[in-house]
Amino acid sequence: MKSAILSVGTEILFGQITNTNTVYLSRKLNFMGIDVMYHETVGDNPERVKQVMRRMLSEVDLIITTGGLGPTQDDLTKEMAAEVMGCELRLHEESLEKIRGYFTRTGRVMSENNVKQAMLPVDDGIILPNNGGTAPGCIFEKNGKIIICLPGPPREMTKMFEESVDPYLRSKTSDVIYYRMLRIFGIGEGQLESMLENLITGQTDPTIATYAKEGEVSVRITSKRKTMEEAAAAVDKMAAEVGRIAGDAVYSYDDEDLKDVVAKKLIENNLSISCAESCTGGLFAGTLIGVDGISSVFERGLVTYSNRAKEEELGVSSETLEKFGAVSEETAREMTAGLKKKTGSRVCISVTGIAGPTGGTAEKPVGLVYICADFDGKTVCNEYRVRPVSRNWIRNYTVMLMLNMINKLI
Amino acid sequence: MKSAILSVGTEILFGQITNTNTVYLSRKLNFMGIDVMYHETVGDNPERVKQVMRRMLSEVDLIITTGGLGPTQDDLTKEMAAEVMGCELRLHEESLEKIRGYFTRTGRVMSENNVKQAMLPVDDGIILPNNGGTAPGCIFEKNGKIIICLPGPPREMTKMFEESVDPYLRSKTSDVIYYRMLRIFGIGEGQLESMLENLITGQTDPTIATYAKEGEVSVRITSKRKTMEEAAAAVDKMAAEVGRIAGDAVYSYDDEDLKDVVAKKLIENNLSISCAESCTGGLFAGTLIGVDGISSVFERGLVTYSNRAKEEELGVSSETLEKFGAVSEETAREMTAGLKKKTGSRVCISVTGIAGPTGGTAEKPVGLVYICADFDGKTVCNEYRVRPVSRNWIRNYTVMLMLNMINKLI
Repeated sequence: MKSAILSVGTEILFGQITNTNTVYLSRKLNFMGIDVMYHETVGDNPERVKQVMRRMLSEVDLIITTGGLGPTQDDLTKEMAAEVMGCELRLHEESLEKIRGYFTRTGRVMSENNVKQAMLPVDDGIILPNNGGTAPGCIFEKNGKIIICLPGPPREMTKMFEESVDPYLRSKTSDVIYYRMLRIFGIGEGQLESMLENLITGQTDPTIATYAKEGEVSVRITSKRKTMEEAAAAVDKMAAEVGRIAGDAVYSYDDEDLKDVVAKKLIENNLSISCAESCTGGLFAGTLIGVDGISSVFERGLVTYSNRAKEEELGVSSETLEKFGAVSEETAREMTAGLKKKTGSRVCISVTGIAGPTGGTAEKPVGLVYICADFDGKTVCNEYRVRPVSRNWIRNYTVMLMLNMINKLI
Repeated sequence: MKSAILSVGTEILFGQITNTNTVYLSRKLNFMGIDVMYHETVGDNPERVKQVMRRMLSEVDLIITTGGLGPTQDDLTKEMAAEVMGCELRLHEESLEKIRGYFTRTGRVMSENNVKQAMLPVDDGIILPNNGGTAPGCIFEKNGKIIICLPGPPREMTKMFEESVDPYLRSKTSDVIYYRMLRIFGIGEGQLESMLENLITGQTDPTIATYAKEGEVSVRITSKRKTMEEAAAAVDKMAAEVGRIAGDAVYSYDDEDLKDVVAKKLIENNLSISCAESCTGGLFAGTLIGVDGISSVFERGLVTYSNRAKEEELGVSSETLEKFGAVSEETAREMTAGLKKKTGSRVCISVTGIAGPTGGTAEKPVGLVYICADFDGKTVCNEYRVRPVSRNWIRNYTVMLMLNMINKLI
C-alpha cells in the first residue's frame, strides 16, 4: 500500500511549530510495510487542502491528515476530505455527548463552535474516538481509497493512532509484520552500528534499524512473514543475538522507558526510594513519579538547590562545601548519607552538577555531574562529563544516568 | 512572493530524522514577507523530485530545496533543478579547490565522488559557498522563477542561508511581515474563538489565528505591509484589543513560556521561592529550574509524596491528614505554612492532588488538585478539577496552574 501524510496548519508554514507528527506516522506506517511517498504541509486554506488531497489520491491509496479538526472556523480538514471522497458529514450525537462531558467534567462552558467537532461521516465512514481531547477523528473509505483524519496535537494524535488506526491498518495489510524495539543506554548510535554491522548488512528479514533518541539508542527488529509465529520467532532470535552483543546496555527488549523499568523493579520488590537533587532540580523525582503506582515506594524527594538547603536538609558539612565545592564527589556522598539518615529509604540517590549554560569553570566545566546511590548500604558514586548540548539536555541526560545507576544497582 | 520548501531525502520519509530545516526556513521567509505555501518531502527519486519541482513552479515563484547535494549517486536535487530550469551544470574549479582543501584540513582523502559536488550552474546561476561542509549550494533563476538548492545538514544549511540566501532574497522583496504571538492560559480555544469572533471575521490585515497547545492557547496576529513600522503598529494595536478582551488570561504578548515569565519576575524582583509538591512530584521545581539563572532565587523544593514526609518535612498534623485527607485544602494550607516556617522564602507554594489513573473516588475524583501559595503573608488557596486526560497531562497542567497562580500573586 502507498501512502502520503498531509499536515494541515498555517502555524506549521509559519515555522511556529516543529512537525513531529510526520516522524511518528512515518515510522508507524513503515513498520507496517506501508510505503510513505510524500509528506506535505498546507495552510488552513480549504481549496488548497482539497486540491492536494485530490492530487495525492491520484498517486497513493492512503492519506493520513493531521490538524484542522478543531472548533475554529479555519479548521476544515474533515469537511474537505468528505467533499473529496464524496461522503456526508452529519451530527454524531454520541460524540457530541462526549465533548459536552469533557467540558462539564472540567467545569467549563462548551462553546457552540465545538458542535462542529461532532459533525462526522456517520453513514459511510468510521468514527475515531478522541480519548485525549475533544476532536474525534474519522476514516473515509471509498473505491479503494482511504483518507484518515487525525487531530493535530501530538498527544491526541498518537493516542488515537495506537487505539484505532493501528488495528484498522493492520487489518488492511496481508503480510503480518512483527517487530520488537530494544532500548539501549550507554552506547552511542555510531558505535552500536559498527558492533552490529555483520547483523545489519545483508539482512533482508528480519531487518535491523537503529534510531538515536535523546541520549539513548533504539534498535528496531522487524520481520514480515506469512504467519505471526514465523515473524515472532525470527525477531526473537535476532533480539537475543543483539542482546549478546550489546550486553547489559540493553535495558528493555520491549520498548519500555527506563523510568518504567526502574519503577517496576522498585514496586515489585517493594523497595522504598528517596532522592536529593541539585542540578536536576526535581526532574528525577518528577520523572519517577510519572509512573502510576510509584506512591507505594516513593518516600521523599528533596530539591536542595542552595548550599543552605544542602546543609539544613541533608547535613552536608559547610567544610565539605567550602573545601570541595557543591559539585564534588564528597558533597554527593554526604548528600546521600544524609538522605539515608533522614528517610531510611532502602534506595537513596543524590545528584549534584553544573547544568549551565553559565557557572562552568576550567576544572569544573558545564556538564560535570556527580551521582551517588545507596542500596541497603551498598554505595556507588560516579563522576560523569555530560556533553554540554544545552541546560535541559544535560538535566534530562543526568536523570537517565541516575535511573541507569539504580537499574544496575538493585 | 510565493514560495514552497522542498525537502529531499528518503530518511525523512522513513521517520529517521525530524525535519527542522523547514521550521527554520519558514520563519526566515515569513519574516521577509515571502508567503510559504507548501512544505513537501520526497525521497531520493529523480523523477519524483522533478515532477514536484515542476508542479510547485506552476504555483509559486520560489522553491527552496534542502538535501540531496551529497557526493553519492542518489544525491540528485541540483541536477534535477538544472533540468527543470533548463540550466547547465559544469565543473566549478574554485569550488573543487575548496572541497579538496576541506578534506586536506580534516586529514581525509577526497573521493572522486566529491567532484560531483563541484558541478554547478557556473554560467547562468549563482554559486553559494559552503563554509560549514563540502557541498556548495546554488541558485537557479530564469523567467521570474527561482530554485535555491541548499545542503541538508542543518548547521551547513543555516550558515549558507544567513551568509548568502538572506541578502539575496531581501534584494527581491518589497513587503515585510510582522507578527506577534500572544500566550493565553485559562480560556479554551473554542471559547476564545467566540470571544474574538468579531475581530477574526472579516479581518484581512492584521490577521488573527488561534491554536491550542498542551493546556493553553496561542493567538497569532500577523500584518503584511510596506514598512516594518506600519506592520508593527497594526499588530500592536490588535494585540492591545485582544488583551482587552482576554484580560489577564494573557500572560505573554511575545510568545514567552509561562515558566520563563514567572522566573523572570522572581529573578528581577529577587524573590526567593520554595515549593512542596505531592502529585506533581518535583515537576514544578524541575520546570522552574529549567530556566538559567533561577539559582539566585530558587531556595528549596520538597517532594513530600508520602504522609510521613508531609508530617516530618512540613509539620502537617496527622489529625489534618486523617480528618480531611492528604488531598484537601487544609493539608495544602498546612504544607505551605510549614514550608514558609522552614525556608522563610518570600514565595512558598504547595500542591496536593490525585494524578491517577488509580486512587480516585466519587467525592475525590482523579484530577482533583489543591494549590496553596503564599507571598509575603498573602495566601491564596484554590481547588481545581483538572481534566483527567492522563496522569502526566494532569501533572503538567497542574504545574501550569501553579505557575499561573504565582504569576498573578506576585
